[in-house]
Amino acid sequence: MSIPLAPHPLTPSSLSTTEDVRLGSPLLRRQFVFYTNWRKGRRGRGASCGISCSAEARTVVIGLAADSGCGKSTFMRRLTSVFGGAAEPPRGGNPESNTLLSDTTTVICLDDYHLLDREGRKEEGVTALDPRANNFDLMYEQVKALKAGVAVEKPIYNHVTGLLDPPELILPPNLLFIEGLHPMFDPRVRDLLDFSIYLDISDEVKFAWKTQRDVEERGHSLESIQASIEARKPDFDAYVDPQKQYADVVIEVLPTQLIPGDNERKVLRVRMVMKEGVKYFNPVYLFDEGSSVSWIPCGRKLSCSYPGIKFFYGPDTYFSHEVSALEMDGQFDRLDELMYVESHLNNLSTKYYGEATEQMLKHGDFPGSNNGTGLFQTIIGLKIRELYECIVAEKSVTPLEAAKVF
Amino acid sequence: MSIPLAPHPLTPSSLSTTEDVRLGSPLLRRQFVFYTNWRKGRRGRGASCGISCSAEARTVVIGLAADSGCGKSTFMRRLTSVFGGAAEPPRGGNPESNTLLSDTTTVICLDDYHLLDREGRKEEGVTALDPRANNFDLMYEQVKALKAGVAVEKPIYNHVTGLLDPPELILPPNLLFIEGLHPMFDPRVRDLLDFSIYLDISDEVKFAWKTQRDVEERGHSLESIQASIEARKPDFDAYVDPQKQYADVVIEVLPTQLIPGDNERKVLRVRMVMKEGVKYFNPVYLFDEGSSVSWIPCGRKLSCSYPGIKFFYGPDTYFSHEVSALEMDGQFDRLDELMYVESHLNNLSTKYYGEATEQMLKHGDFPGSNNGTGLFQTIIGLKIRELYECIVAEKSVTPLEAAKVF
Repeated sequence: MSIPLAPHPLTPSSLSTTEDVRLGSPLLRRQFVFYTNWRKGRRGRGASCGISCSAEARTVVIGLAADSGCGKSTFMRRLTSVFGGAAEPPRGGNPESNTLLSDTTTVICLDDYHLLDREGRKEEGVTALDPRANNFDLMYEQVKALKAGVAVEKPIYNHVTGLLDPPELILPPNLLFIEGLHPMFDPRVRDLLDFSIYLDISDEVKFAWKTQRDVEERGHSLESIQASIEARKPDFDAYVDPQKQYADVVIEVLPTQLIPGDNERKVLRVRMVMKEGVKYFNPVYLFDEGSSVSWIPCGRKLSCSYPGIKFFYGPDTYFSHEVSALEMDGQFDRLDELMYVESHLNNLSTKYYGEATEQMLKHGDFPGSNNGTGLFQTIIGLKIRELYECIVAEKSVTPLEAAKVF
Repeated sequence: MSIPLAPHPLTPSSLSTTEDVRLGSPLLRRQFVFYTNWRKGRRGRGASCGISCSAEARTVVIGLAADSGCGKSTFMRRLTSVFGGAAEPPRGGNPESNTLLSDTTTVICLDDYHLLDREGRKEEGVTALDPRANNFDLMYEQVKALKAGVAVEKPIYNHVTGLLDPPELILPPNLLFIEGLHPMFDPRVRDLLDFSIYLDISDEVKFAWKTQRDVEERGHSLESIQASIEARKPDFDAYVDPQKQYADVVIEVLPTQLIPGDNERKVLRVRMVMKEGVKYFNPVYLFDEGSSVSWIPCGRKLSCSYPGIKFFYGPDTYFSHEVSALEMDGQFDRLDELMYVESHLNNLSTKYYGEATEQMLKHGDFPGSNNGTGLFQTIIGLKIRELYECIVAEKSVTPLEAAKVF
């Protein structure tokens, strides 16, 4: 299945346009790609990641797709944490910037490529999920520029005001994460991704999460939440959901199967679907690679409280791709459970024994730290670090050196 | 639950009796224990099993309980095969002897302790399953004597004539296997066992096996087979089945769960229930000791034909005992499947990689060689060899030497 895309009536035909492409609104600021061969200026920085970077080194780009309010930012904080140092908004810039910077990583939010601001979308009758509300040409050009080591002036979508604020300078990092609704929608952007992730929250869990936030914290009614989910659904299904077929990893968040008739949705079953044959990405496995295994670690050596923990691992197909799936149902109550599980998973890409557990503990206050969302997000962080290091190492090895090694 | 036993009206009050204890039949021969300190005469033989046997070494006794026609003799041939050399009937003796001898093992059939011959049972209206038809006092005295290194003159029950034939001399072997309907029925005999096994064939499978043999090979009717099974059932349930609670290992042979609605019973699900805490017996496990694991080895590395193979391993309780269960559903089609499975099982007590597979191949023509019955029988053979060697090693270590080792 393929997603219909350009040509699109609302897509600007020229990229580095200085014209106001916002239809009927005075709010869209002028946007342009700010070309600088920034990469040359930071050649020496590669050493800080422990790898010798040659002039060929480039920014590695990772895409994360998911609906709003589904924990993308927590995911991003876990991912960037693996690379060391906290990710923070740019200093001295727009306080409503959606960007997060650390020594080696930059996270940009694709909402910044909204073509229409909140009012504009209302006028045009399109949602933020609709490709017509987003500037894929600019997204493509800027991600391409960053990947090539060129800094850009990226627009900012102000989530508070719903307006498009003046652009901010984004320098090409070692790792660029692009997170949002459509990182894999446009084939040109998709082709720029070195690795892609889709966070797939089941309707039941999405409803429970939104209910918790909007009813308990904001006083909305159950009906209004249901209506809001229903209203988003057609565009979500048409433009966001189909991207999962392109993802290298999909994290599915599902209702538990450990508690019959559970409606609380506090205990989750989380399934990590890992595409086979992705360069520098070896799927995690349980006990025996390529077999189907279910595992309840709670037994004689590990005693868990109700409802316990259950893992599943096995080969599968996903949109005609060969994949491996790793599933965790239930939650961790204690540290020893997490350690026990880590010690039995293979291909975790940790650098030392217990590193995954250490990462989980470091962010024990993040949502999902006691279940499969936190565990799999952490694992993906470790896998991306390995992928990054392999890409960099590959780039820095000359053909002569390669011949010596192999 | 306990089984009521002695005093019993038909049990002879004296063991080494020279009187005819057969009630109303001229067929019972005089039976006696033939006391010789045989052990001393074979002291040097211990070296042939690779272990230095001291004067304290004694015969290790293993009990195997199961109904007739349930593959006990195949099981015995697999067990003794692990100790090397073929097990054969005594040379130059009664051609209807039920005994099997090899260099290091002796298998005696407990039918030889029938107190009543076929006609006698008919007269008394008791089945061979009934304790009243069996001489437990003699069984106890003779097993005790053999265990202490003393030869005995054991009676012979002639399965062809249904008569009790003159006794045969049994010398104390390194390993004595006692197989039959009641090895764990009498608490005195049970206490003599160093290890015990119960072969538990489900009614569905038993019916299918008897049907195959008696209808297809002997021309009996389905109704007569059903009637014969029904007739045996009350005594079987009363006197044979309860022994399984005392067994160190139970092998359950069950209908497959891989083929919905299967009535052929060609594909079997076999479950090995292993008691925890048995000295020198470490239960086999899959991947993670003490956890619950299901495993379908057929996947990317191993392709199996329909209906495939499925393993299960996990802790359980069995008659209030803590046990570990290992289950295999399905069958092996090719050698590589067997090798693959062997390589993933732990605590197999093999002496070299592939020994279990080699043992299976050696007897590829035995019934059950392609399923869990053959696999688990072979594994039990390997476990018993280890148990035997540990017992012998323990006996041959003096307290001073022991203090040095530990």
